[in-house]
This record gives sequence, C-alpha cells and structure tokens, in this order.
Amino acid sequence: MKVAVLGIGITKFGEQWESSFSNIFVEAGSKAIQDANIDGKDIEAIYVGTMSAGRFIDQEHINALIADQAGLNSIPSTRVEAACASGGLALRQSIMAIESGMHDVVVTGGVEKMTDTTMSKTTRTLVTAADQEWEAFLGMTFPGLYAMIARRHMHEFGTTREQLAMVSVKNHRNAKNNPFAQFNMEITVDDVLNSPKVADPLTLLDCSPITDGSACIVLASEEKAKEFTDSPIYVTGSGQASSTLSLHDREQITVIDSTCNASKEAYRRANITASDVQIADVHDAFTIGEILAIEGLGFVKKGEGGKATEDGVTDKGGRIPVNTSGGLKAKGHPVGATGIAQAVEIVSQLRGDAGKRQVNADIGLTHNVGGSGGTSIVHIFEK
Amino acid sequence: MKVAVLGIGITKFGEQWESSFSNIFVEAGSKAIQDANIDGKDIEAIYVGTMSAGRFIDQEHINALIADQAGLNSIPSTRVEAACASGGLALRQSIMAIESGMHDVVVTGGVEKMTDTTMSKTTRTLVTAADQEWEAFLGMTFPGLYAMIARRHMHEFGTTREQLAMVSVKNHRNAKNNPFAQFNMEITVDDVLNSPKVADPLTLLDCSPITDGSACIVLASEEKAKEFTDSPIYVTGSGQASSTLSLHDREQITVIDSTCNASKEAYRRANITASDVQIADVHDAFTIGEILAIEGLGFVKKGEGGKATEDGVTDKGGRIPVNTSGGLKAKGHPVGATGIAQAVEIVSQLRGDAGKRQVNADIGLTHNVGGSGGTSIVHIFEK
Repeated sequence: MKVAVLGIGITKFGEQWESSFSNIFVEAGSKAIQDANIDGKDIEAIYVGTMSAGRFIDQEHINALIADQAGLNSIPSTRVEAACASGGLALRQSIMAIESGMHDVVVTGGVEKMTDTTMSKTTRTLVTAADQEWEAFLGMTFPGLYAMIARRHMHEFGTTREQLAMVSVKNHRNAKNNPFAQFNMEITVDDVLNSPKVADPLTLLDCSPITDGSACIVLASEEKAKEFTDSPIYVTGSGQASSTLSLHDREQITVIDSTCNASKEAYRRANITASDVQIADVHDAFTIGEILAIEGLGFVKKGEGGKATEDGVTDKGGRIPVNTSGGLKAKGHPVGATGIAQAVEIVSQLRGDAGKRQVNADIGLTHNVGGSGGTSIVHIFEK
Repeated sequence: MKVAVLGIGITKFGEQWESSFSNIFVEAGSKAIQDANIDGKDIEAIYVGTMSAGRFIDQEHINALIADQAGLNSIPSTRVEAACASGGLALRQSIMAIESGMHDVVVTGGVEKMTDTTMSKTTRTLVTAADQEWEAFLGMTFPGLYAMIARRHMHEFGTTREQLAMVSVKNHRNAKNNPFAQFNMEITVDDVLNSPKVADPLTLLDCSPITDGSACIVLASEEKAKEFTDSPIYVTGSGQASSTLSLHDREQITVIDSTCNASKEAYRRANITASDVQIADVHDAFTIGEILAIEGLGFVKKGEGGKATEDGVTDKGGRIPVNTSGGLKAKGHPVGATGIAQAVEIVSQLRGDAGKRQVNADIGLTHNVGGSGGTSIVHIFEK
C-alpha cells in the first residue's frame, strides 16, 4: 500500500478560548490545503476524528458541521471515534477510502475542543473512554489506570520513578522547539517528582494536559499525487488492533497487546521491521505510556523501556528519537486531534522541515492509543 | 462496485430495559454471523454506527467495547457517527474497507440504547444532531425543524395535513407484519390528526419514537463470498453527500439536497436510474421526511410526494413500495441502528424472506438521513 501525503496543517495547541471547535478545524484544514497547493474543488471527501464533541461542546453530527463550516458541501464527510485514537482511525479510514478507488483526494483531520466546559465535566468525559460499567462507574479515572500499570511495571522490571520522569523531561525539551506545542518550557526530573501527586506514582508532570487543537493532512492516491508534487511523503503501512476495554481483563497489564498487534500489521504492510524505524511519535498520555509504547512497538526489549529512556536511546540524538514534537505531554493532547498531529510531525521530519527539531530519518512511525489500550493504531511513513 | 451481503440480524426494536447497549449489539451480531454461516475467525473487522452513546449511556470508545463484548479482540473495530445516518455511514465505510483490499469479511452494525436515561436528556441529546450554535442553543428541536419544512411544503405544493398522516398510516400497516417492529398496531388518519400536537402541524403519530435496538449485517468481497454462498445479495451502489447543518442556510427547505446528491452517486455507481428501484426503505423520522425522500430520490416529481402517498404509489402493492418494514415511524428509530436496519429489510425482501411483508423486487434502495439533512446516505442492493 502507498498513499501520498500532499499537505499538512496544525493549529497552536493550548487553551483556544477565542476560537470554536469548527474554527480550529477550519484553520488546520486551510493550512493543509494551502500546503498541498490544491483547490477546494480537488477535495473529494473529508474524514474527521473527534472523541467526544457530543459531551465537550454538545454537538454530534460533526461530519456535517465540518463540511459545512469548511465550505465543502456537498462532498461526503465522515466522523470516526476511537477515544484518544480517533485521529489515527480517521487516517486509516482515509487510506482505505483512497485504496478502494472511491476517492482520490481526501482531507483528514482531528479536532477536539476541551476547554469550553468545566474541569469536572472534562474528567467525566475523558473517562467515557474507559469501561463505563466496570471502571468509570466505580470511580476510576485514566491517571488511576495508568498509575496501576506504572506500579506493576516498576515491580516487574525495576523501572524507577526517575525513569518515568525522564520521559516528561525529554518531551518538554523537544517541545521547546515546537512552535505549535502547548508548553515550551524545559523541566527537570525534580520538577516532575515534586509536582502535585495525581495518582501515585504519577504526578501532574507525568500527565498530558487538557488541550484545544486541530491537525489536518491532505492525502491522495499515488497516481493523483503526481499532478501536484514530485516528492510526496508516503504512508506505506497501517495497522489497527483492539484489546479489552477494561484493564482487569488483560493477561498482563504491563503489555498493551493492541500496540503489539497493530505494529505487527503495519510493519508487514510496509515490509519493514521495528529496527528500520528511524523516528516515532508515540502515545505518551502518561509517562508510563511512552515506556509501554517503545516496548510494544519493538524499539526496545520488554521491560527495558525505562532504562532505554535513561540511557538516551529515545532522545533527539539517540538511536530512535521518540516524540520530537514534544509528545502528548508537552505538545498537548486535544484527544481527537492527536493521531493526526503525530502524522504532521513525522511528515515534517521526513520532509526535512522540522527546524530545530530536525533529525535524519527516511522512515517514521506514528502510534495512537485509545483509552488504556482498547484500541491501538500504527502508521508507517516513508520518503 | 459489488460487495456481497452474507448475513443479516436484528433485535426486537422497542424499550429493551432488561438489556444493555453491548448486549443488544451482540444479539444482532450473533444472528447475522449465524445467518451468514461463518465462524468468528472468518471476521476481519467490525464497523459500528452509533450516534451518541457518549451521552445516552456515558460511554465513548464504542469500537473497543463492541469488539470486546463480542469476543472479537484483537481485530480492528471502528465506530462512525453521522447522527441518525450513522448506520448508513458504517455500511459505506465497510464497503470501502472491503474494496480497498484491507479486509475480506466485515461485520457491520448499528446500535443505540436511548431509554436508559431521562426523556429530557434524550431530547437534548437528539438535538446535538442539529446546529448547536444556530438551532439547538436557541431552543429548536427536530420536530420543530421538520414542522417548518412540512408547513412550507404544504404552502408551496398543496400537500395536505391528511397526506402527511397517510405516511404514518401506511407505515403502521406495514409494521403489523414485522415481528421486530416497535409498534404492531394499525392506526387511522383520524388517529394521527387527533394525537397530541408536537410541533404544528406535526402530531405525536407523525413522529418516530424513542427506541432501543441494533441491526447487523455481514459483508464480504465478491470473491470471498463464493466460499459461503451461491446466491448472496449484492450492494451495487453507494452514495453520500453533505448539506448545511442548519436549515436556514439552505436555498430551499423543501428539498434535502444531500438526498438528491447521494442518490445520484449511488445510481451512477450501480448503473441504474430511480425508475429501476423496486423497493425502498427511507428515512421517515417524521412523516414529511418520507415525502421529501421519495421526491429527492426521484421516485416521484418534486411536490408530488403527498399526492403519490394518497394515491397508494408507495403502498406495499403500489408502483414503488416504501418502508415495508414499517419505517422509522412504526418499526422504531434507534438512531445509530436505523441505517443497518433498513439494509436488513431490503436484503430480506430481495432474498424472498420477508413473509407477509414480501414484495416482488430485484433491486432495492436504502436511504438514511442525519439531522435535518446535513448528511444523506443511499445504498443500492441487487439480487
């Protein structure tokens, strides 16, 4: 499989109180369309990932809202949802739409407006990504779920509290050079350890923030792309897998098996192995999440994610740079937008357009997780 | 395009207080899988349409819930949303998944659990399918929107109040023979006219009910289908279009232009015209909706939908039987499930399995609308 990325666009991530859900989508979409150097009439379909506009802004029927506000009626518009993996899911459906021959040029976006409500409502909405009957109803929240995973990982593999913190420190260091990131300040391990406890052992600076934001990309069939550019970046692999919605139903809570299965499928389709990947943007909603990701994706051995982080393996200058964008932790995590924002970072890097964040890479990967791993979606990008 | 339908399944529609969201999905899915005579291991992906589980049952991440509860981890599972057209959208994405070569056998369902909450919350949730900023926030509801369309249709085309009622009377007559329908009683034009006013001129019996229910179908590539059956029903056309989310932004409110555009695409892909269609299940969320549908789909001329209904054109024995299932009005309208329930009816009819509802048809159509027409999705089925 081979689908071309013609354009990318992203809004500033953060508290966008002066803008609306549809405004930020249109801003990112317009940037992507301009970047692709295409006209509105070239666009044949829209895909949008959003987790819970129904609860955050009391608006469902997002597909129609988006098409309407973008001035793109009457083309087909589709909203997909897989909690925090909604963006990755939108990307995957767009690829299928193109490969099926249904559409040649598709705009794919992710968007979430999380700050137009109360903080308690935001927390109650985010936990709708967990199992309502077995987890949320009993008072569980996502920091709580990931804290249990972190504790178990520390117990089984000797991962240290400091190693968890180092994920956050690295991602903040990367975000300093990302103009679209929510947080541009560097932090230290001590800052993380001394920030307010959220769910032991996780503190505030182990957790990704509440964010408004949108990211869009323009995709085209390999044939159609030739009309617009000589050197697109290609999506060469896509993988998606499901796991139990509840954490307690898993055989091991220190393995996100959907990540393992999704990456296997993506590597197979791209005809590569984990060791071929030269850069990755992964789902660090919590610091332990990045450690699970680099293990599950096969970048390091199971249990060695903490040590690898400490050793600088995932640093910008390391063997496999991870989250050069700043990751969910420091770039911000507008849940439905995250999967597409990851694609924007990897495409920027492969194009050589990443400025001070630039690393040398021909093959990149995005890894997007829903909930505590009920869904994982992995994509491979190549020059 | 040609994708085979291997199996169909549907739950009883109505108030399913003894069952949960995932239970009713699994019930419909199991029936479809049994009907298809396939094994769980044959299934490569799941698609599910649901409008607002996030608000109705406080659960997002529906794709993972469904895969988990169906015992189908770790295959990819995808939730799509387009308000009341979510089911039709799931069908369309499944077709693309198969035609792209990504998957050979897909289970596609629609599901909504609308009665596990308060009636006022249900109403507030349904109106999230309208424009939140320009319609819902100002107090508008769907009966109000469709009432304005009805009034204008009566003014422009001389459609009578009685003709609107006749849509409901016909659909109740059809539902009497549908064991899965929410309402099995016949009603009269006087019953409709004398039922409580909801939004003038629409009364209670002009409006589809609040319903729990699920419907599923099993789809396969033409090649793969041959392993399981010699005579599948095929989906031969698919069309989707968007229109303005708000009614006031339309040039004419008596035309749902997304229906016109979606049906044109579906006819083109199936290489047929409107006059080739021999049976249709259309989106009669309100009686005026069926009149707009038969006009927009090209079964009758613009403005003549009321008269055609009065003349029996859409009766079971008429030129183009419409809503033999009972339609949304009498079969029930679990919003996310409706698009797939329509497919279940048309496949039953083309198979010759519709019992007392059976009509003679080789080509059938489904027509699913989101909101007041912001999305329309049309599919063509053939023997």
